[in-house]
Amino acid sequence: MKEQSGIGQMISDLKALDTKNMYLKDFFWTWDKTDDEIHAVFKVADILRAMREHNISSKVFDSGLGISVFRDNSTRTRFSFASACNLLGLAVQDLDEKKSQIAHGETVRETANMVSFMADVIGIRDDMYIGKGHAYQKTVADAVEEGYRDGVLEQRPTIVNLQCDVDHPTQCMADMMSVINYFGGEKNLKGKKVAMTWAYSPSYGKPLSVPQGVIGLFTRFGMDVVLAHPEGYDVMPECEQVALDNAKKYGGSFTKVNTMEEAFKDADIVYPKSWASFAVMQERTKIVETGDQKALADLEQRCLANNAKFKNWTCSEELMKTTKNGKALYLHCLPADITGVSCKEGEVDASVFNRYLTPLYKQASYKPYVIAAMIMLQRFKDPAKTLEALVKRNQQRVVL
Amino acid sequence: MKEQSGIGQMISDLKALDTKNMYLKDFFWTWDKTDDEIHAVFKVADILRAMREHNISSKVFDSGLGISVFRDNSTRTRFSFASACNLLGLAVQDLDEKKSQIAHGETVRETANMVSFMADVIGIRDDMYIGKGHAYQKTVADAVEEGYRDGVLEQRPTIVNLQCDVDHPTQCMADMMSVINYFGGEKNLKGKKVAMTWAYSPSYGKPLSVPQGVIGLFTRFGMDVVLAHPEGYDVMPECEQVALDNAKKYGGSFTKVNTMEEAFKDADIVYPKSWASFAVMQERTKIVETGDQKALADLEQRCLANNAKFKNWTCSEELMKTTKNGKALYLHCLPADITGVSCKEGEVDASVFNRYLTPLYKQASYKPYVIAAMIMLQRFKDPAKTLEALVKRNQQRVVL
Amino acid sequence: MKEQSGIGQMISDLKALDTKNMYLKDFFWTWDKTDDEIHAVFKVADILRAMREHNISSKVFDSGLGISVFRDNSTRTRFSFASACNLLGLAVQDLDEKKSQIAHGETVRETANMVSFMADVIGIRDDMYIGKGHAYQKTVADAVEEGYRDGVLEQRPTIVNLQCDVDHPTQCMADMMSVINYFGGEKNLKGKKVAMTWAYSPSYGKPLSVPQGVIGLFTRFGMDVVLAHPEGYDVMPECEQVALDNAKKYGGSFTKVNTMEEAFKDADIVYPKSWASFAVMQERTKIVETGDQKALADLEQRCLANNAKFKNWTCSEELMKTTKNGKALYLHCLPADITGVSCKEGEVDASVFNRYLTPLYKQASYKPYVIAAMIMLQRFKDPAKTLEALVKRNQQRVVL
Repeated sequence: MKEQSGIGQMISDLKALDTKNMYLKDFFWTWDKTDDEIHAVFKVADILRAMREHNISSKVFDSGLGISVFRDNSTRTRFSFASACNLLGLAVQDLDEKKSQIAHGETVRETANMVSFMADVIGIRDDMYIGKGHAYQKTVADAVEEGYRDGVLEQRPTIVNLQCDVDHPTQCMADMMSVINYFGGEKNLKGKKVAMTWAYSPSYGKPLSVPQGVIGLFTRFGMDVVLAHPEGYDVMPECEQVALDNAKKYGGSFTKVNTMEEAFKDADIVYPKSWASFAVMQERTKIVETGDQKALADLEQRCLANNAKFKNWTCSEELMKTTKNGKALYLHCLPADITGVSCKEGEVDASVFNRYLTPLYKQASYKPYVIAAMIMLQRFKDPAKTLEALVKRNQQRVVL
Repeated sequence: MKEQSGIGQMISDLKALDTKNMYLKDFFWTWDKTDDEIHAVFKVADILRAMREHNISSKVFDSGLGISVFRDNSTRTRFSFASACNLLGLAVQDLDEKKSQIAHGETVRETANMVSFMADVIGIRDDMYIGKGHAYQKTVADAVEEGYRDGVLEQRPTIVNLQCDVDHPTQCMADMMSVINYFGGEKNLKGKKVAMTWAYSPSYGKPLSVPQGVIGLFTRFGMDVVLAHPEGYDVMPECEQVALDNAKKYGGSFTKVNTMEEAFKDADIVYPKSWASFAVMQERTKIVETGDQKALADLEQRCLANNAKFKNWTCSEELMKTTKNGKALYLHCLPADITGVSCKEGEVDASVFNRYLTPLYKQASYKPYVIAAMIMLQRFKDPAKTLEALVKRNQQRVVL
Repeated sequence: MKEQSGIGQMISDLKALDTKNMYLKDFFWTWDKTDDEIHAVFKVADILRAMREHNISSKVFDSGLGISVFRDNSTRTRFSFASACNLLGLAVQDLDEKKSQIAHGETVRETANMVSFMADVIGIRDDMYIGKGHAYQKTVADAVEEGYRDGVLEQRPTIVNLQCDVDHPTQCMADMMSVINYFGGEKNLKGKKVAMTWAYSPSYGKPLSVPQGVIGLFTRFGMDVVLAHPEGYDVMPECEQVALDNAKKYGGSFTKVNTMEEAFKDADIVYPKSWASFAVMQERTKIVETGDQKALADLEQRCLANNAKFKNWTCSEELMKTTKNGKALYLHCLPADITGVSCKEGEVDASVFNRYLTPLYKQASYKPYVIAAMIMLQRFKDPAKTLEALVKRNQQRVVL
């Protein structure tokens, strides 16, 4: 059974990848990582899924905590992190800042150490304010690194970025795994056109991390990535630069266009999604710091009014017909604002969304494995050897 | 030790029961289930308890999630579900709708799939609105069934109804297990009189699922079940029909009377408990949909005033004296409204309640095992074989 | 490896201690416990840490729940309890009274039994009201003792006091473990001067359990314990009596002085920390019972105004210079009110606090092990034998 599963071959493939610099490090942004490291995440995710499908336990931790910090509401990311931790044997302990003494004036450095005495991983979602999310994650990482070095912590918990203001690596890598599988392998991606486009939603302030993460990651696969958004909805210039550099290095392209129509034309993959503009998010961050509620409400009204000018930016059946053979793969990180379902006018026609339901759900299904793979690569010195030990142990996930 | 425990014999008994239709199905209502299936739940619950008492681990899952959804506050059901999951090796992850993005307009179908990538069971309590609770559970079940069929989910999580608007099967089956044990076996139940009666409580809107579940289940054991309530406090007619049909099929009876006195007279078992009337719950459900707070407050006042007419519907010492030998078994799903303890005037005299404290607590103690049994029967193709494997494995629950 | 670790020797040391009276009992206050019992907690904590450092699993529970009840916000204690439970194999289930039906009028006795069917330990923090916290814990302990005796519970969950109105044993024992390690062993503590002093903080109502716990425990090690606070900030007289009795019995001293200066003079250890006065806490408890919000706000204002008279009670660099060689060990249970960091004027100068960061964090690191040790000693009849079984089993915490 084990040989038929291809697990042995996948572990051999993993051995060929250089992942030693991931050990006891953190996962913030995909563009921090080498190609070997990105591929290792995909490979370990595939191995863990295959093991699960063959009822082989991947419990590498007999005890240990996975700490989650959600500074924004979350369903799928919360459950993905919980699933990943559980798959590896870690118990999830949520750091709910409302139930903590953090309000007493405790520093981030102190809290990070205090919760980490038996923590193997810390998953953080902090995506609300430009210039804040990554900074917070980095502060936590530095604190536990220091705590480990000073002998306060017996192990170095590693950080998994569950979404920050810059990147959303667990989402975008799950997206990419679904794309690779959909098109029958990475080798088939070269030259494929990807339309990462803004879409209208009756809400404001959605994070920029998905479009930024997508253009930063998809350009590494030789694809032609097109970014489209209305005027004023720019993403962070640093992320566009990453995409440009990748295009040059990996032989694809990164271009910006001004209409959804142009982006969708002959696209193989479309990813229409709402986000706030970088400029608005910067303004909002400053207002939040002053605590001026009226200014915040004014900004929201202004933004919603501005959004409303672009209601025609929607993934309609008509637009889908203009994609490659009228059959582009539709991606979304979910939940989507579906016209006539979750809102009056939104990001996508209900009939389009419903046609892609199964691929969309499968797209999401990669996330727990991506997170688990990051944990394994960051916490184990020789992950291939550990995986081999698990296969050899051959413990059942479910007693049959 | 194992032989002395009777576990081997119980597993043999289990093999004689046809449970194959429970596999990968859900547990909504007891009257959906065959007699073999009901008995299999009791049997597996007994086996799991015996294993625990003999320090034999019943951890059948090495990893996996048990998801809980509580749309109403809960202590004992929350802990019963957590205990059951833990006993079998599942980690509990609560879907707290307040902390989720569900408010963003996500559909139930989507959420059900998104949280279930590594879920083996989903326990749901949704008992607040007539016509809603079961419908919600069914929608979740259909969604994960579809997700499993479409290859989105690697396993089919099964639903355990932790209380809906119609039935409360984990409660009523725990009640029945305690009755069976109290009277020394199922064979002694034939002809016993059960008084399921309304009782006064200074609150309104308590679910109907317990009286409905009790008349729907207890009538399967050849008992004479009597339902009593003041005018206007009817339960769902469908549930009364179930009780009538059962009475005919199983050789007992189901009758309705208009006074507590008549119901208690010579009863072997009494279950006096407050509930709202079906008509009120229907009205309330409609008002909640309109969001009319004033109408809701008016309804509450009206109901409380109406309840107050029936303060004499209370399980007093005097009434208890009229039961069989003055010693009927007093049942309650807890928490009870105890006169002079938790309220001025309530469902039961403090002296009655206190006399039955130990049996009441034991009654509750069956619930974790009932839930665990449902999970085992719904998630394992051959539960008897799996239980045998556990006994053979003989892993200690606690290292001694 | 195992022999080099010293674990075998430590288990032998443990065997020499009489801990049989801890079995199936609770841990409320350190002064309830014999010297052997206190030393056994330290010893088991050391063993568990050594095992973890040598990657030996200490999972003694294959399943089972650790229940936490936090009636006050908590970060570090919450994570310490979760870490301890996880280390031993217990899943944590939080009894969040807001999500429960306890408001329905359920008694503490009932709730205690209802949540405990599969509970091995209950950790409780209830420190807000004088005369309430310990009483609540005792009620829970009596309830589960009774439930166990009456056959309602299959096992006797034991209580670990995670802070009450009287003592904070997990904190003070962690403090003491850090002191023992800092000074190179218990034998070196005799004659050391400890300054347990009040310090100014811009908040009111901090529990008295830390100063009370410290004077009650540190006086058992032959040290000269000095308590200093402004007039009116007395601790409970019963706790002072414990300290006096200990001083006599163990050959150290317990004295009270009126200034921080006097306490700090030549001290080997300083523990400057804010607390409310016993008299204020008593008054507050009474007001809370009446529900008089205005009286409560008045009391708070009065207290803050009174506190403000003692802003000079702060652990300054100047004061630190007066300690033994200017280098006393600075202790704090965290989080501290740091001048210029978490508040304008607080308990300690930022430069002092920062200089002791690593020892402070290490001090906190003992708490999960202290809690785990209490659980082991209270739940296992022969903890040394169980620990030997674990070492022999030699299961890896992390698969390498």
